[in-house]
Amino acid sequence: MSLHTWSLRHIAQAVRSGEMSAVTVTRYFLQRIDLWNSSLKAFIISSDNALEQAAAMDALRNSGKDPGPLAGVPIAIKDLLDTEGIQTTYGGRHHVHIPDFSAPVVTLLQQAGAIVIGKTNLHEYAYGTTTENPHYGISRNPWNINKISGGSSGGNGVALAAGLCLGAVGTDTGGSIRIPAALCGTVGLKPTYGLVSKRGVFPLAKSLDHVGPMANSVADVAVLLSVLAGYDSLDPDSCQSPARKYPALLPQTLRIGLPKQYFYDRCHPNLLQVIQTAFKNLREHLSPELNHWVELEIPLMVEVPEAQRVLITSEARAVHNLWLKSHPALYGEDVRTRLMEADDIRGDQYVWAAQVRRDFTAAMEQVFEQVDVLLTPTTPIPATNIGQVKTHVHTHEVNVRSHLTRNTHPWNLTGLPALTIPCGFTHDGLPVGLQIIGPKFSEPKLLSIGKLFEQILVYPGIAPAYR
Amino acid sequence: MSLHTWSLRHIAQAVRSGEMSAVTVTRYFLQRIDLWNSSLKAFIISSDNALEQAAAMDALRNSGKDPGPLAGVPIAIKDLLDTEGIQTTYGGRHHVHIPDFSAPVVTLLQQAGAIVIGKTNLHEYAYGTTTENPHYGISRNPWNINKISGGSSGGNGVALAAGLCLGAVGTDTGGSIRIPAALCGTVGLKPTYGLVSKRGVFPLAKSLDHVGPMANSVADVAVLLSVLAGYDSLDPDSCQSPARKYPALLPQTLRIGLPKQYFYDRCHPNLLQVIQTAFKNLREHLSPELNHWVELEIPLMVEVPEAQRVLITSEARAVHNLWLKSHPALYGEDVRTRLMEADDIRGDQYVWAAQVRRDFTAAMEQVFEQVDVLLTPTTPIPATNIGQVKTHVHTHEVNVRSHLTRNTHPWNLTGLPALTIPCGFTHDGLPVGLQIIGPKFSEPKLLSIGKLFEQILVYPGIAPAYR
Repeated sequence: MSLHTWSLRHIAQAVRSGEMSAVTVTRYFLQRIDLWNSSLKAFIISSDNALEQAAAMDALRNSGKDPGPLAGVPIAIKDLLDTEGIQTTYGGRHHVHIPDFSAPVVTLLQQAGAIVIGKTNLHEYAYGTTTENPHYGISRNPWNINKISGGSSGGNGVALAAGLCLGAVGTDTGGSIRIPAALCGTVGLKPTYGLVSKRGVFPLAKSLDHVGPMANSVADVAVLLSVLAGYDSLDPDSCQSPARKYPALLPQTLRIGLPKQYFYDRCHPNLLQVIQTAFKNLREHLSPELNHWVELEIPLMVEVPEAQRVLITSEARAVHNLWLKSHPALYGEDVRTRLMEADDIRGDQYVWAAQVRRDFTAAMEQVFEQVDVLLTPTTPIPATNIGQVKTHVHTHEVNVRSHLTRNTHPWNLTGLPALTIPCGFTHDGLPVGLQIIGPKFSEPKLLSIGKLFEQILVYPGIAPAYR
Repeated sequence: MSLHTWSLRHIAQAVRSGEMSAVTVTRYFLQRIDLWNSSLKAFIISSDNALEQAAAMDALRNSGKDPGPLAGVPIAIKDLLDTEGIQTTYGGRHHVHIPDFSAPVVTLLQQAGAIVIGKTNLHEYAYGTTTENPHYGISRNPWNINKISGGSSGGNGVALAAGLCLGAVGTDTGGSIRIPAALCGTVGLKPTYGLVSKRGVFPLAKSLDHVGPMANSVADVAVLLSVLAGYDSLDPDSCQSPARKYPALLPQTLRIGLPKQYFYDRCHPNLLQVIQTAFKNLREHLSPELNHWVELEIPLMVEVPEAQRVLITSEARAVHNLWLKSHPALYGEDVRTRLMEADDIRGDQYVWAAQVRRDFTAAMEQVFEQVDVLLTPTTPIPATNIGQVKTHVHTHEVNVRSHLTRNTHPWNLTGLPALTIPCGFTHDGLPVGLQIIGPKFSEPKLLSIGKLFEQILVYPGIAPAYR
């Protein structure tokens, strides 16, 4: 009974129908966590009360009520979200606490029948992309445990790839859902800004923060999104989406946009080869009406990376300012250093960056009048070695942490939805992610396209050693 | 024929009916400008083409067409707005030019029949409240020419008080319409943020900038607002108002809010006495259903002034950054110094300030569930001496420039409409302004209340020596 290879929809179906109890499923995953977590450091803690949650779910079902579309599904929650009665750390040491209330998205999942199986590891306060957490351990990539998991939602990527859960909730401020999903060979969606409530989620940079689902298939991500999405009147950034159903039907025609510059410029050749093979497969297997490829210019890509740096650095510092003054030694060195970088950013630079964001957002609206989706590599490099700070792309030396966000962070500026799906492996066996970006609130279409591409690109037989 | 004592509605009526030509009116006001402007420095220039504009208006009328609700009315335009074919300086030396296009609000006025009579003096780049302009002269207060006019739209206040025009368009980022209106004894309205287009207006601090009307009575301001207000799809900050008619009918009942702290705390006793007499008169003359006075707390007034300083300083620097680097010597000393102050403001302070703004705006929505309007002194001090940098309020030494904005700048943060009307004179004959603040898009009600209060408070017999 390899429950960890099931889709979350199949688990939910089995629990709903009474074929399997939620307690059985939960115990199975708790055992897997016990077995592997000390090596992989995917979870900071598993839930003390997971079996209680499961027993309550079974009781509900046995009383004749429908336990919901996620009945008994083990879900990992990034430890940046508050979970009632379960220890929450935000990946740091200043705020370790047992919350009295869950983030509303956690409650939504539980109301849909999900079991919160544990709180996953992350880069300290979500401010980084490697999940080498100085307090809770280094999340290791199940495809090669000497490699990073990506981050900041690294624990989610690891837990999914290693089969320690079947769905996960992450956050994404510059790529924190998409990067670990890509590096660990799973699926991740950063939804449209405001589509999923951020209440009860510790902020990194409020105007860039997104909450979204991760899972092992596009279909599973779609199920999670339909539970997570919804207006929250108490979250000032929350907004209404016109969409109700994820995914939608496939579009009749499809114009696929390929950026001419930037997104393919600083990619590692090993990774680029995988992407090009994936494109070849798509061109060969897509039906003619879905096979229109358009090369186009993405405007403002000279300003966007600096604008993103200014926004995230200033906003993160605004969150941490008091604790940085009162308890600097409680931060790990890399996060403390990054928080200090805000010393050198002036208010008028922030104003400039906010203007670049508005201009870029408006320009991208124009781009999406020409194409339905854009395709880019999710990350320009595959997973690097643990502890590695620099790497080379052609003759360029690049900083691992920031280079990993190169292709993802522009879509936090615009708030546009971006999905990553696995699209193949480098010759040394590391997963590569393909990023699909769409216009505002295009999640239904994005997921239907992702599902189609996944059928063409993913080889279901391949799994990491731990799964 | 004292046309300068007429209301703009009466002038328009006379020109519309053919009783008087627009050329006659225009020549009259140009002569007054010639007579008084060298002493008062209200205008940087009068329009070369004013008589041509007027002749065209007369020709239109004589051809049987309606020249519009502002037919022949001489309007002053603050020299921060572009005017096609008329020299524009923004009050500084970096951008002196003759624009190819007018700001849309100028075109709206001309389409309604108004004559652009000239471009009025202002604090350099609108960044100050005294209109002691180092390049174009010191605007002098017609009630006492040794006193400042207020600013930054000081020339407008002077031109209206001295009868050199009958209406004016100003801008207001921290009080720049309301302060000179109060100090010169005229009426000024800062409308709801985005109600009047800002296109073709040189920015000071984009998120705080407003364009609005000034005139010698509330009724005249209402006529101007109905011409100026309107959605501009090319101005990213523009918005639609539900209102169509200014002023509306008087409300059936009225709850008048008086802030318990801050707005009355640092007022000069001479000015406070005038305000208190005005309140006494209002209480005596308002009908019972319009006479409900409520004292209340205004939240966040500890944070708001510092938030405003951070926002305006950072945003102004973002506008001027390149010129400050390339041509610092072209700035007057006080504006250059203020632009340099942005060196000491960090990006995360800007983020903090923007959050204070959001919180304060939300809190004010609550306040306006309890009352219809708030009343405060428009400025805490009357006009000070030209050249005076500091003044005393009780035992406190305060900076004139910043203290003048104390009661006005909070409403730029919230974007709420605020009207100032004259409410009396200090014992040494200086006008005092009463500020009436309402909720978003409450201009129709605000103007009807202003008109009612004006009938109770204003003594039409009193005019400055120049009028």
